Amino acid sequence: MLFLSQIGEEVAKLLELKAKLEDVAEVGKFTLKTPKGTRDYGPQQMALRNSVLDKIVSVFKRHGAETIDTPVFELKEVLTGKYGEDSKLIYDLADQGGESLSLRYDLTVPFARYLAMNKITNIKRYQIAKVYRRDNPAMTRGRYREFYQCDFDIAGQYDPMLPEAECVKIVSEVLDTLQIGKYVVKVNHRSILDGIFEVAGVPDDKFRTICSSVDKLDKLSWEEVKSEMINEKGLGESEAEVIGSYVRLNGGRDLVDKLMVEDTRLMASKKGRAGLEAVALLLQYCQLYGLEDVVKFDLSLARGLDYYTGVIYEAVVLGGDVGSVAGGGRYDTLVAMFDPKHRAVPCIGVSLGVERLFSVLEARAEADKKLRTTEVEVYVASAQKNLVLERLKLCKELWDANIKAEHSYKNNPKLLAQLQHCEEMGVPLVAILGQDEVARGVVKLREVVTRQETDVPRSEMVNEIRKRLQSMQKQ
Amino acid sequence: MLFLSQIGEEVAKLLELKAKLEDVAEVGKFTLKTPKGTRDYGPQQMALRNSVLDKIVSVFKRHGAETIDTPVFELKEVLTGKYGEDSKLIYDLADQGGESLSLRYDLTVPFARYLAMNKITNIKRYQIAKVYRRDNPAMTRGRYREFYQCDFDIAGQYDPMLPEAECVKIVSEVLDTLQIGKYVVKVNHRSILDGIFEVAGVPDDKFRTICSSVDKLDKLSWEEVKSEMINEKGLGESEAEVIGSYVRLNGGRDLVDKLMVEDTRLMASKKGRAGLEAVALLLQYCQLYGLEDVVKFDLSLARGLDYYTGVIYEAVVLGGDVGSVAGGGRYDTLVAMFDPKHRAVPCIGVSLGVERLFSVLEARAEADKKLRTTEVEVYVASAQKNLVLERLKLCKELWDANIKAEHSYKNNPKLLAQLQHCEEMGVPLVAILGQDEVARGVVKLREVVTRQETDVPRSEMVNEIRKRLQSMQKQ
Repeated sequence: MLFLSQIGEEVAKLLELKAKLEDVAEVGKFTLKTPKGTRDYGPQQMALRNSVLDKIVSVFKRHGAETIDTPVFELKEVLTGKYGEDSKLIYDLADQGGESLSLRYDLTVPFARYLAMNKITNIKRYQIAKVYRRDNPAMTRGRYREFYQCDFDIAGQYDPMLPEAECVKIVSEVLDTLQIGKYVVKVNHRSILDGIFEVAGVPDDKFRTICSSVDKLDKLSWEEVKSEMINEKGLGESEAEVIGSYVRLNGGRDLVDKLMVEDTRLMASKKGRAGLEAVALLLQYCQLYGLEDVVKFDLSLARGLDYYTGVIYEAVVLGGDVGSVAGGGRYDTLVAMFDPKHRAVPCIGVSLGVERLFSVLEARAEADKKLRTTEVEVYVASAQKNLVLERLKLCKELWDANIKAEHSYKNNPKLLAQLQHCEEMGVPLVAILGQDEVARGVVKLREVVTRQETDVPRSEMVNEIRKRLQSMQKQ
Repeated sequence: MLFLSQIGEEVAKLLELKAKLEDVAEVGKFTLKTPKGTRDYGPQQMALRNSVLDKIVSVFKRHGAETIDTPVFELKEVLTGKYGEDSKLIYDLADQGGESLSLRYDLTVPFARYLAMNKITNIKRYQIAKVYRRDNPAMTRGRYREFYQCDFDIAGQYDPMLPEAECVKIVSEVLDTLQIGKYVVKVNHRSILDGIFEVAGVPDDKFRTICSSVDKLDKLSWEEVKSEMINEKGLGESEAEVIGSYVRLNGGRDLVDKLMVEDTRLMASKKGRAGLEAVALLLQYCQLYGLEDVVKFDLSLARGLDYYTGVIYEAVVLGGDVGSVAGGGRYDTLVAMFDPKHRAVPCIGVSLGVERLFSVLEARAEADKKLRTTEVEVYVASAQKNLVLERLKLCKELWDANIKAEHSYKNNPKLLAQLQHCEEMGVPLVAILGQDEVARGVVKLREVVTRQETDVPRSEMVNEIRKRLQSMQKQ
């Protein structure tokens, strides 16, 4: 332990020295920016994001989900050994005394930690939060070091394919409600892949690495993947060919039925058979959910993460370059990694690629330019000078009646400037006060779009505004 | 630069060695917990938090606010020199190559950075996000290292007290809507304090430190504060007494009027006079907003932060031990610290103490036990075995009609268990399917509270459910 602390001291000294040198070097050249790979979200972006997330959350709530939240950082050990090669992308906090901490890398591992720690054996929850990856950001392609994840998971010991089918249904409802365009949800089963590897004669200890190669089929051709299997992973030509004969298959229930009836080789593998039976049941349930045109059994789907143990799926937008917008699968052993007695809590989840969805919908919104950043219903304007006190009184009346209202923070703003603000911000109504209106006990109610103005007695103003807003909403 | 990179390499080698040794040392003694000073929020807590935040956001929106978001970490230099002594509480990220980063300490400094960086000169925005402080957490008193802040700010060059009055109005609307109990909003002005110090003969360079002493009057007696001023800060007895004669004053517009008419000493100070005139105007505006019973001019209010330049305020719940639940003030020079040309953007803001509000409302909710964690409207139950496919079909019908529904993920759940789940989770309606109901084309609709059951034809089910839900909502 002495040795350890000595190293610690040396490191601290060197780091201090380094910091000093850098401080000197950097004084005066402090650039005003957000950290690499991060960004601010302005009012426009937030308005879009919140409207998208509201729609997604309403789907989750329609399916009875609760929500939880976990800290942005975890003990370093919680994340250790969960992400394989990607562990190098984890952000660590500085050692300022106390525990070793890391920023969360996804929401799944903290969720599993939460379940184990609180001995929760069943829950249906969603969580929307930012995660952190020290990736080389390719920000033009929508990849950041800080980004939102939006996860829905079902934990619990349940009967086969019932939670799976609901996850697929949720993905499809989300994509429908966002009107993202035509899409398919590809499904596969880890046991089918294992069965194929068994049939092909791949040694057990190569299952995972060969699975990773298969996972690349969405970006590489079969020839390229085959060459990786043979040249990099040491598979024989004939084994690779057997794999190739399977992973190029895709279809619907007919394909499952065909394999179950005709492929005696794959059905002879216990894993292969179990996987096929599971997918057959999943497709039956999906059909009852009206998803037969959306779900596609795709044997090339492998998914990168090691922790999947059953059904896996991925939603892909067809046409254009949007690509994958949701993915997930069953992970029955992750919670057990955190439980002192290694008790398993079976889980299945889906993670929506909200950043990608945001970009697509942002581009679309920019074309439309219709998105408002505030919800102001009435702007209180004055037509002449010295009416600020009257404006304040009017604002109070509106706020007390739960009408969204604002006014200028200038004593004597110009009427034209006030009306322009309303046009820019999309405020539908203006309540205009002049000395004449105050004396007569009325406000001039102006519809911004039509520019129609009507005098309304103050006593009827709130009701009149409500009526106008309702009729505008219906249009 | 060679020297720098050599140090970097040495550090990396030593750190790697240290990490290896620690890995070995720590295997097996990993405790399952969240980091010190942090916590998970379970479904109950999240349901409460979201309902509280929804109410707060609806107040912000009623006043026409937009929202923005900033990264959870900033360049270290952005935070440097903004928090005085508290800078030691800032969390730094580990040096993993690249920029020096720190977790945000509040939302105000990132907001100022955002304004300067984007050259925004006026905005009315709210932001709700977590901030990080390496404080010694006293978690029983509701203090954490990771906690929510909820800020509303108005930036822009406006006429005196118009934004100030609206901030006070917003605080009062939030506290009213949360039914937190009786409260006052104390207001004061930094210039009045400066005027008092001037009148008392405090040297200029002691204004800030004496201001900090005054700030302690909410926790310490005047005698204790006076002793600190004299013994620790080197003020004379008579100077302290003059300060004491002021900071023990509080009242309404009458007090401001009295000081303006009678206190020729304070009115002779340019700062004192300007501050009093400002507060007089603010109180007039607040009266128009119906806040005369809520706002109190309190000369002991000082607020800790250095960056305030004008009106300051703090909302305090009366009676009980809740204390301060909101605070803020004007800070006209913070944005200039980030602008290369030091252009100022005047700002005023309020930060709601949402964690304290959560604790109070959480305690209250626990007493009530009424809070639901899901919004499920109909539970789809089966009364006999082998009805899972029928349940799936029924769920689809309900979801497609935008009715919030769930069912058991077990093939053959017991009816009693299904009904118990509904009672526990507060689900109002159950749609029960038996073989008989399926054959007759009906569902048995059960109201959970009354236990009344009625057979409803499938074709009328959705309408009947909507009708029932509406009439339940009205009760």
